[in-house]
Amino acid sequence: MRIAYQGEPGAFSEAAARLFEPAWEPIAFRTFDDVFEAVERGPAHYGVVPIENSIGGSIHGNYDLLLAHHVSIVGEVELPVVHQLLALPGATLEGLRRIHSHPQALAQCERFLRKLTGVEIVATLNTAGSATQVADDGRLDQAAIASARAGALYGLVPLAESIQDFDDNLTRFLVVGRRPLDRGVPDKTTIVFTLANEPGALFKALAAFALRSIDLTKLESRPIPGKPWQYLFYADLGAPRSDLACARALAQLAEIAPTLRTLGSYPRWRHAEAAAPVVLGVT
Amino acid sequence: MRIAYQGEPGAFSEAAARLFEPAWEPIAFRTFDDVFEAVERGPAHYGVVPIENSIGGSIHGNYDLLLAHHVSIVGEVELPVVHQLLALPGATLEGLRRIHSHPQALAQCERFLRKLTGVEIVATLNTAGSATQVADDGRLDQAAIASARAGALYGLVPLAESIQDFDDNLTRFLVVGRRPLDRGVPDKTTIVFTLANEPGALFKALAAFALRSIDLTKLESRPIPGKPWQYLFYADLGAPRSDLACARALAQLAEIAPTLRTLGSYPRWRHAEAAAPVVLGVT
Repeated sequence: MRIAYQGEPGAFSEAAARLFEPAWEPIAFRTFDDVFEAVERGPAHYGVVPIENSIGGSIHGNYDLLLAHHVSIVGEVELPVVHQLLALPGATLEGLRRIHSHPQALAQCERFLRKLTGVEIVATLNTAGSATQVADDGRLDQAAIASARAGALYGLVPLAESIQDFDDNLTRFLVVGRRPLDRGVPDKTTIVFTLANEPGALFKALAAFALRSIDLTKLESRPIPGKPWQYLFYADLGAPRSDLACARALAQLAEIAPTLRTLGSYPRWRHAEAAAPVVLGVT
Repeated sequence: MRIAYQGEPGAFSEAAARLFEPAWEPIAFRTFDDVFEAVERGPAHYGVVPIENSIGGSIHGNYDLLLAHHVSIVGEVELPVVHQLLALPGATLEGLRRIHSHPQALAQCERFLRKLTGVEIVATLNTAGSATQVADDGRLDQAAIASARAGALYGLVPLAESIQDFDDNLTRFLVVGRRPLDRGVPDKTTIVFTLANEPGALFKALAAFALRSIDLTKLESRPIPGKPWQYLFYADLGAPRSDLACARALAQLAEIAPTLRTLGSYPRWRHAEAAAPVVLGVT
């Protein structure tokens, strides 16, 4: 099986793909759109995309892509985000003049970066790419912020480890595919819906689930492009679609929601399964 | 009066400050945190920060900063985001080899950029900064994506205008200060609260407003750093805090919300007031 991810080897998305199913072959694509295309039309069987970070919040663009493509959510995986400051062997923290990384990674390491002086911060399009750039440039006064695995792949060594501001920095990834995965029993359902722009609309929508004691594990509003300040709502329900109460709740929601779509019903990621990520990060 | 903003002259935040109150003096700060500090301790009287884009969604970090500082929301302002491709006089679209801008601006112009070939896309820390860089480098094969005003300030000319993917690209900014502004009558209230992690909690919270026909114009969940997958909720209510029904609703919410804070009660920005932004963008 092949699983598509955005970025290049050493990217956090690649680590998420390996963590979800070590036996599958991760294949790299340049953009998230390319990942969805690869799943929809081949050559990938599944794809993995980040959807939410425990510090930074949702990755909105991937919600839009879920809606725009004919794929379903078939699973999820959580990855701890551990950043390293990576440079060529022989480089020192004191000798650094430039640090490259993606703005999101730079923001996640702000406290560490604020302590450095005389260092230029350079934004890049992805973390693994900044590691290859430092390796290619061959200069000892440059460093990249990326994963330990990116350092190992491109011959860089850590000048500082675990430099993210918060230890509890997790990213949740969705696994998408054209057909359901035969592993685990679905116990979670993700839906997207719109509502009339009137007082109480969201309250009525949530009633469908609250009255049946169905847990809402996440609710996210997302602007509708071209319709300023109107929103799509994405919700994660703590029940499988096949559950009778869940099916009835969705039918009730459909009575008041002009649009409603189920994006997938899939097994929740168990933290116990996530025991290996730190090891995976450095292989 | 001095109003603090993040970035440098030509930034969209500066344009928002000028649109909100042309008579005030905008002063630039490097980070959003610096803006809040400048309002809290001087030298600024007010500050302006982007909080939500109609395409990209919320700017989560500024919600966090609102909570971390002793300032209130005293107003809001909406600015149309119009991107230009800016280069030195004499440059041509065909001769370009590099385009610089902030990743958010690059993403907002993706359809335009996809049509170009042989051009390297370079991420930067802000749009106005990429315009100064193109001006300073003095090379005819480079361009920046930034506002028309940034082009005018730094001696660049547009190779292409209004290159954003969606015409209806609006950014909503909050104006923050230590004391309320004496202009307009508050008709909107922004609150932040937490809830117990149990089924139906959000439904009960929204009941406080729905049962009193108080409109919820926005609801946003935000991860709590260090507590993965637990959320703060930010809500905009269509009523002033001084309204009796609103005060009662907040008292009811306080019964079930472990934490509840009012971030401000202020006059809603009227679109009619926003007639001038396009003109402002090029002065």
